[in-house]
Amino acid sequence: MNKLIGNAIVGQSGGPTAAINATLAGVVRGVLENVHNGTIPTLYGMRNGVEGLLREDIVNLSEFFSDAEKISILEQTPAAVLGSCRKKLPKISEGRETYETLIEIFKKYDIRYFFYIGGNDSMDTVAKLSEYTRECDYEMRVIGVPKTIDNDLVGTDHTPGFASAAKYIATTVSECIRDCAVYTTKAVTIIEIMGRDAGWLTASSGIAKAFGGDVPDLIYLPERAFNKEEYFEDLRKILDKKPNVVVAVSEGIRFADGTYVCEGFGIASTDVFGHKQLSGTGKALEVATKAELGCKVRSVELNIVQRCAGHIVSKTDIDESVLVGKSAVRAASEGVTRQMMTIERVSTEPYAVEISHRDVSEIANKVKHVPSEFINERGNTVTDECARYLLPLIQGELDVKYENGIPRHIII
Amino acid sequence: MNKLIGNAIVGQSGGPTAAINATLAGVVRGVLENVHNGTIPTLYGMRNGVEGLLREDIVNLSEFFSDAEKISILEQTPAAVLGSCRKKLPKISEGRETYETLIEIFKKYDIRYFFYIGGNDSMDTVAKLSEYTRECDYEMRVIGVPKTIDNDLVGTDHTPGFASAAKYIATTVSECIRDCAVYTTKAVTIIEIMGRDAGWLTASSGIAKAFGGDVPDLIYLPERAFNKEEYFEDLRKILDKKPNVVVAVSEGIRFADGTYVCEGFGIASTDVFGHKQLSGTGKALEVATKAELGCKVRSVELNIVQRCAGHIVSKTDIDESVLVGKSAVRAASEGVTRQMMTIERVSTEPYAVEISHRDVSEIANKVKHVPSEFINERGNTVTDECARYLLPLIQGELDVKYENGIPRHIII
Repeated sequence: MNKLIGNAIVGQSGGPTAAINATLAGVVRGVLENVHNGTIPTLYGMRNGVEGLLREDIVNLSEFFSDAEKISILEQTPAAVLGSCRKKLPKISEGRETYETLIEIFKKYDIRYFFYIGGNDSMDTVAKLSEYTRECDYEMRVIGVPKTIDNDLVGTDHTPGFASAAKYIATTVSECIRDCAVYTTKAVTIIEIMGRDAGWLTASSGIAKAFGGDVPDLIYLPERAFNKEEYFEDLRKILDKKPNVVVAVSEGIRFADGTYVCEGFGIASTDVFGHKQLSGTGKALEVATKAELGCKVRSVELNIVQRCAGHIVSKTDIDESVLVGKSAVRAASEGVTRQMMTIERVSTEPYAVEISHRDVSEIANKVKHVPSEFINERGNTVTDECARYLLPLIQGELDVKYENGIPRHIII
Repeated sequence: MNKLIGNAIVGQSGGPTAAINATLAGVVRGVLENVHNGTIPTLYGMRNGVEGLLREDIVNLSEFFSDAEKISILEQTPAAVLGSCRKKLPKISEGRETYETLIEIFKKYDIRYFFYIGGNDSMDTVAKLSEYTRECDYEMRVIGVPKTIDNDLVGTDHTPGFASAAKYIATTVSECIRDCAVYTTKAVTIIEIMGRDAGWLTASSGIAKAFGGDVPDLIYLPERAFNKEEYFEDLRKILDKKPNVVVAVSEGIRFADGTYVCEGFGIASTDVFGHKQLSGTGKALEVATKAELGCKVRSVELNIVQRCAGHIVSKTDIDESVLVGKSAVRAASEGVTRQMMTIERVSTEPYAVEISHRDVSEIANKVKHVPSEFINERGNTVTDECARYLLPLIQGELDVKYENGIPRHIII
């Protein structure tokens, strides 16, 4: 493979996670620690992904991160420090001007390495950009680095960012279970967890099954149709045995006919302005459960907090996220392009992974669901096998640095 | 003061906090470490407060906690390990039977010390019980030990449990601010925080003001009438300068006419079952803001998670909570009764407190509000003085013990 000398640029895209900055830190470390063997003089960052890149909104990260302490604070800073975007590049045939603008910017900064940290849409950007640069004969190595709390990318055992959200969820759910257990009056607590199409995050609420810990009494993933008769029947059975029931639901659960539970149960409400209000899945289930059972019911939506809880990240996740970023730099310098970095699980007990990469076109625009053997037959909880599979991902705590009582963050 | 020899019983009451078990641990430590100078042979615990006590649902805590490691895990376990209740004792004149039952149980277990950890209602129980035992000449020392995340008890600088919730809120809000900053599209994020009558918890979202850190752009406490015209005006001004606005609101904010914002903005919605649905304050404001400004608006309700987040407690809070529990045992053995333990602030910089106690009848059924000098004139944020006052409370991190990736909890 020929040695390609030129600068690199890195961007972040899609929804924030608690580990996307750790991957950025990995790319920064990779460049500054010279894993590229002298091929990358300078690392730039694009603000707000390709959206900012098109405006030439670029920062010199080699300079900014010359202070090593900043990199370690970056690893514990949630959300995307470079900013993010939801922009998808147009089809090449329909947006040649966009691509030409990009090439001009690449030439101006002598960019020969392009790292894009993101989810599904970002891999699409990587695929298109690789195609265009090849087409117009601009030599640039384009690598996607996965991140998404949803863990729904194919081709990788799991995605950076997922495990930290999973650790937050497993911890918070265990705390809510303690909280709900204090009273003797019958009560149902419904915890709504992110994941519209894939139930990985909601499944994480059941991780403690792997070691006999407390988990929600019922867990519903979007991979299975939600049957409200069975749900009420199961709730009644549990309430006969103990006063406090905790239910974890994915925001994306649907009835057998495909209707989202939040639509089927909740949409008929109108606010004071006469607008139809789509309540969340948890809230919709809360209302329906109260109407059916008559007992106290409340819902808790973990909301954006589950994706940005930098104070309780998985060390395994942060270490892997850094490693994936660093490996991307090494791989690119060795000639890899048009690939997404992947994490391959070598073994679960003891847990071991290898960092590798796959053709990005195999990955973009596909969804990895929770497999059927990870959900019990009745579809109301996860299996022990699922819990054992997820358990190693949430191991270890980062030694988060605090200042004035709250975790330190870095802002560029 | 005469030396009173007899057993002790301790109970927990009211809403759970992340530190109420630390106070219990303090009582346990106090008894096991003999701060009572040989006067208390055995410590019992009542399950579910006076509700369980009336059923004689009692555990021997001296026995259970003979293993010292259990006590340190207790200190990091959120919610109330003995269970809680919302029961208030009846007026003595109207419920003599209840009191007679209690005295019989006290006699049976030779209880001469009664510790009740709780909020306002619990102090009422302490007051009534002191009165009855004095009336019927049963010698027992009755002490209230404060806890409440709301920090609304008078007579104490702050309440155990508040600072841990405040640390969780300050941290989570700073993470949400990072999360919200990643996109360039105009968006408003409303964070709803607990506190129906007192705004202490919501004020905590502004702690970072004390050191120039990021805080929500607007902060609304229930101590001030909410003016929607001013709110929209302020929002527009901020959105002119930057795309992302974060607003912190107390669940209990009201309009000038006394109507809760969640009623005035949200109550007109009816669900599919025809029930009127009272949405939360955040959700109601979300709907109103979207209708007024037309931009993206979302709301995040911190919900019960803010009171049970044992994984991110304030070490200052946990240390004080333990100390208050231990001091209660010492004070009682020295003759103190019918008192609530208090924390007196000696100095803010450097932070120093002393543990003391006050007559419980001065405290029960009163509410301590956020003082007017802690809120700015326009009523849309907290003052620097407020932030500096709160800052010392959230200092320090407990070295939380994890097992299998999640914090260890103890269950009795």
